[in-house]
Amino acid sequence: MKSYLDCYPCFFTQAIRTSRMITSDEKKIWQILNEVSLSLPEIRFGATPPEIGREVYRIISKRTGIKDPYRKIKEKCTHQALSLYPELKKLINSSEDRLMTAIRISIAGNIIDFGANFDFDLKKDVGTILSQDFSINHYREFCEALDKARKILYLADNAGETVFDRFLIEEINKPVIYVVRAHPIINDATREDALLAGIDKVAEIVSSGCDAPGNILKFCSDEFLKVYRSADLIISKGQGNYEGLSDEDRPIFFLLKAKCHVIARDIGIDEGSIVLMKASKA
Amino acid sequence: MKSYLDCYPCFFTQAIRTSRMITSDEKKIWQILNEVSLSLPEIRFGATPPEIGREVYRIISKRTGIKDPYRKIKEKCTHQALSLYPELKKLINSSEDRLMTAIRISIAGNIIDFGANFDFDLKKDVGTILSQDFSINHYREFCEALDKARKILYLADNAGETVFDRFLIEEINKPVIYVVRAHPIINDATREDALLAGIDKVAEIVSSGCDAPGNILKFCSDEFLKVYRSADLIISKGQGNYEGLSDEDRPIFFLLKAKCHVIARDIGIDEGSIVLMKASKA
Repeated sequence: MKSYLDCYPCFFTQAIRTSRMITSDEKKIWQILNEVSLSLPEIRFGATPPEIGREVYRIISKRTGIKDPYRKIKEKCTHQALSLYPELKKLINSSEDRLMTAIRISIAGNIIDFGANFDFDLKKDVGTILSQDFSINHYREFCEALDKARKILYLADNAGETVFDRFLIEEINKPVIYVVRAHPIINDATREDALLAGIDKVAEIVSSGCDAPGNILKFCSDEFLKVYRSADLIISKGQGNYEGLSDEDRPIFFLLKAKCHVIARDIGIDEGSIVLMKASKA
Repeated sequence: MKSYLDCYPCFFTQAIRTSRMITSDEKKIWQILNEVSLSLPEIRFGATPPEIGREVYRIISKRTGIKDPYRKIKEKCTHQALSLYPELKKLINSSEDRLMTAIRISIAGNIIDFGANFDFDLKKDVGTILSQDFSINHYREFCEALDKARKILYLADNAGETVFDRFLIEEINKPVIYVVRAHPIINDATREDALLAGIDKVAEIVSSGCDAPGNILKFCSDEFLKVYRSADLIISKGQGNYEGLSDEDRPIFFLLKAKCHVIARDIGIDEGSIVLMKASKA
């Protein structure tokens, strides 16, 4: 997905929010905004939001010397999500369609976000999503693809959400490769976050080599690209991965909640909607 | 008032909104945003919002060749406000404190805004403001200053609001110099807008020489500065003039509705509040 005009101010809003977490020095933050300002025109028209976001967060890290401003928040979110694990597991055990419930729980985890939307109430929002109608639901195609799949990739999104991903991986009941970011970026899940969520107990954890807030193939490692190209089912979590991969022709299913109006418009749904959606070019 | 961090993304939001009124060419608008992006770091830290806004709107005009994108909207707002004139005049005629009612009406006109807030319902919002409590009310000081004043300046804000200013000027019942922008900027009132509102019937219309969306003395003409320095009462309408003049030591009274959280915080009131406030350094 290309960046839209409305993404432009949002990058500055995100830069302010993240910088404020690190410093209260307004002049320093102003300088960060100025550097972001100078860098944006160098990015080609039509670049995806994670490509621009990568540059914005790189500037913040460079200027402040803090490489992982969301580290503590990520840990807190993971612990909070882990505390919900037993309750959610019971829900799956008592559900008629275990896979569908696990998909819903996985999408519910997607509300944990500090990029597009940082105002969430985990327990309450999870409850809402569990009973929310899908705006796009390619469940039948997903089940068919899953049935045949021999190599399944699961592209992680945010730390904490990782815990919610475990349920779906457990229901898939086939070997799954869980793909994390190579380096910290916003609250996106790295290997460390996946381990804290216990993903290693249910899947093989692999880095995409990408340090953008969303997998963009040109920033991924050759090693990952080989795995990516040979996968016959790719489960892509969250907005960032959608932004990076929406135009790809691989067998991708996007699981997300549309938390910003730009992505909602790009997909053609209302903001706040949830989708299980096959990539249009797949 | 210096620009705050939150003003940064707002300038891009304003640039997008105004550019979209002129063109649907997304690439062209992206180029405008890029040019705004390159220009912002050249502006000193601590500059007032109208100083930056002036640059943003200058870029839009230069890139699109449209010098007054709000011309039709301004005319429409003025006509709409004129249609409310008889009703509001009756309200003053039947009120216990004519001056206070005129002040309220003048502030009510301040809801007409396409910079900070472009989502308003003129008739409904006027009704609300007429019964709203002031968060800051220096009415007694205002009456005293008015009583003694021999040279009164009235700094206009937006087109349409101009009609609402007439009531207050009429109640002042002393010669008033009505100060407009030298050139079109957003929907700020120029001489043309003041004439359409019939201001020439109640006051002398003078240009400040300033083309920023708020009077900033360094951009004002020498001719205006002489008038400004000799005035013994300055009525300043709206956010833009507050932003430009809040740190001045002249006998200024600010009449405004705080339509953005940044200005509200700077004044120390809630967003949406209305004030009749003497300049702190006056």
